[in-house]
Amino acid sequence: MRIEAIDLFYVALPVITRTADGTQDSLVVRVRTDNGLEGWGECDASPLISMAAYVMPMSHSNIINISEALIGETLNSPEDLVHLRKKAADYGLDIQQLDHAISGADIAMWDVLGKYLDEPVWKLIGHSSSHKKLPYASVLFGNDPDETHAIATSIVERNFQAAKFGWGPMGRGSLADDIALVQAARDGLGPSTKLMVDAGVIWGDNVDAAYERAVKFADLGVTWLEEPLKTEEVNAYKKLGERIKANNINIGIAGGEGADFYRSADDMMTNGGLDYVQIDVGRIGGITEAKRVADRAKALGIQYVNHTFKSHLSIAASIHVFAGYKSFDIIEYPAGNSPLILDLTAPSGIFRDSNGFVQASDAPGLGVDVNLETIRKFQRSVHIEIDGQILFKSSQP
Amino acid sequence: MRIEAIDLFYVALPVITRTADGTQDSLVVRVRTDNGLEGWGECDASPLISMAAYVMPMSHSNIINISEALIGETLNSPEDLVHLRKKAADYGLDIQQLDHAISGADIAMWDVLGKYLDEPVWKLIGHSSSHKKLPYASVLFGNDPDETHAIATSIVERNFQAAKFGWGPMGRGSLADDIALVQAARDGLGPSTKLMVDAGVIWGDNVDAAYERAVKFADLGVTWLEEPLKTEEVNAYKKLGERIKANNINIGIAGGEGADFYRSADDMMTNGGLDYVQIDVGRIGGITEAKRVADRAKALGIQYVNHTFKSHLSIAASIHVFAGYKSFDIIEYPAGNSPLILDLTAPSGIFRDSNGFVQASDAPGLGVDVNLETIRKFQRSVHIEIDGQILFKSSQP
Repeated sequence: MRIEAIDLFYVALPVITRTADGTQDSLVVRVRTDNGLEGWGECDASPLISMAAYVMPMSHSNIINISEALIGETLNSPEDLVHLRKKAADYGLDIQQLDHAISGADIAMWDVLGKYLDEPVWKLIGHSSSHKKLPYASVLFGNDPDETHAIATSIVERNFQAAKFGWGPMGRGSLADDIALVQAARDGLGPSTKLMVDAGVIWGDNVDAAYERAVKFADLGVTWLEEPLKTEEVNAYKKLGERIKANNINIGIAGGEGADFYRSADDMMTNGGLDYVQIDVGRIGGITEAKRVADRAKALGIQYVNHTFKSHLSIAASIHVFAGYKSFDIIEYPAGNSPLILDLTAPSGIFRDSNGFVQASDAPGLGVDVNLETIRKFQRSVHIEIDGQILFKSSQP
Repeated sequence: MRIEAIDLFYVALPVITRTADGTQDSLVVRVRTDNGLEGWGECDASPLISMAAYVMPMSHSNIINISEALIGETLNSPEDLVHLRKKAADYGLDIQQLDHAISGADIAMWDVLGKYLDEPVWKLIGHSSSHKKLPYASVLFGNDPDETHAIATSIVERNFQAAKFGWGPMGRGSLADDIALVQAARDGLGPSTKLMVDAGVIWGDNVDAAYERAVKFADLGVTWLEEPLKTEEVNAYKKLGERIKANNINIGIAGGEGADFYRSADDMMTNGGLDYVQIDVGRIGGITEAKRVADRAKALGIQYVNHTFKSHLSIAASIHVFAGYKSFDIIEYPAGNSPLILDLTAPSGIFRDSNGFVQASDAPGLGVDVNLETIRKFQRSVHIEIDGQILFKSSQP
């Protein structure tokens, strides 16, 4: 089949708040083929900037847009797809946003290819089985310990066996404030629920501040401390990890969502000494590149975890990436109530079974359907024009 | 003073050709302050994508545009500038294009701050002197050895003592074809002109192909082989460098223009074993971040070289970065004939003295003036609208 069109849909809630909540908007990408099939994907990135990467004028041979690289091309096999992914990367060699932007198209191409070949994506990318994963409810800290405790209680009520709290006031007050927040989360969850803490890069390159928290959080049974430092502080990550191990502190260090391309993730694993590498399939360039990281993590003995704070379309894309690796047994699962989490896919999503686990579907492609009604309801109308020529104009899905 | 406005100008030649020639368009950025001063900068990046990073709607607390981070802020000192650069990076934590886009504003802020404090940028960023650099004419290979020979001859006629040939047919034919191209360049330049070869990442991760060329090019007196491999192939770079040293091949390996942020450059230096690190001040996030790389290169004993394939505004910004390091004695100097190289600054530019050397100016700021007539002549009119609200509309400079 041939790729006939790439459609871009910028969806957003009517009011965007200044919180670390990535479920307030999305760029949804549809790939249509000449045999009437379609596939869907999603970018975890600025919608407008990423759209520009699909439509902007050529600057020279290394800045050519994604649409020009892909439309009209043949897509019949995984090999075709990997070739097309590489072609777009070559066309966009000097486009920094390339990886974030192409993530949506890459996921959509795997989806449509799966439908064409009647296979789930996890098989197409080389896995021989799809293992169950434990979803952890991924939420933001409340504004104080009381709010955090209430959120933790509601997570237990919803039968989650694991939860991650992040951002909000974490690291913005004193050490005691930080401990009180985590204590509240632990109290609300009870002793047996897995608890992770996401510091949202708040300590920058300050190893001492991060280490101090790691020691205290370990006492509260925190499985991992996520992004205590900025992604680019690879040497600081290494020092932190070494100090934790040297002192037998029982907590893992997680990071990697800020890795925008394969080498950045590999750098954090190889030189930053991560225990968990967290990859966003909607940022690192799609399923193709995320799978490379998962394979590398397997080889290095580091646990791969998805980073996902978007819709069930992204959860689906994420779980296919590491479906076949049984030891990568936990999956980030956005548990907020944005309609852009649950309603973008319908009626299907990646839902928990009776034991609370989730699993990549055996249905062709990603195994989820997109709800056009949600796109219509939240779509923003974008118009981009240069010298009177329309480069992009939003259309109905 | 306070930052009052950031103006964006997308300039482009009427016809853009599909060659590796980055002097066909540009995003020029002007920062205006409330005391009537203005500073200028330039991005070596897709203009439309980068513009979107200045105007796009907020997605959440980590995707907020550059204008919102900077406009209205106080800029009185280098400390203020570094703080503002960091603020924009925090606002744009999840914007991949952030570094490419903010480069123009960062350079423009240094320019306007220099005018305000009546100091050249090289002093403001911590250098105590401005040393002369040898400019190398940076050109593309001709389509064949004859064309390449003619280009080399014209470079000698223009009194350049160094030249770099890149891209074009290099690596697209056989080993013999590649040697013939470099031989033609050497013959045209004569034996005493410094010659560098830029392979434009053509061998991807193929160390053998790159090594084979390195050996042959060394025989032709090539100072460095630039970007034989892709930026992300850091391990392959390391293998290549080790093999060259183990076999006493007299050629350096250069790379780094694809480094979009500090850590990527550091990774290539620390783990890729580069001999020369080539940083584009219009990509890596401006003068602030390029200076960090220059300092790190100094500490590691690696030679810092600018990557510049834009106007004299970019050459000026580039030379300030490493002006004070005497041992970093060579500078890339675009020698093509695009009006966007020479005419964007006027009447001043960074021109060669009677001995053929160039030097960062002692004049306040960058020390070059922007020619508004050139901007008017080549400006593209951009219009970006979301839900009927105009986010950007080009205006006259």
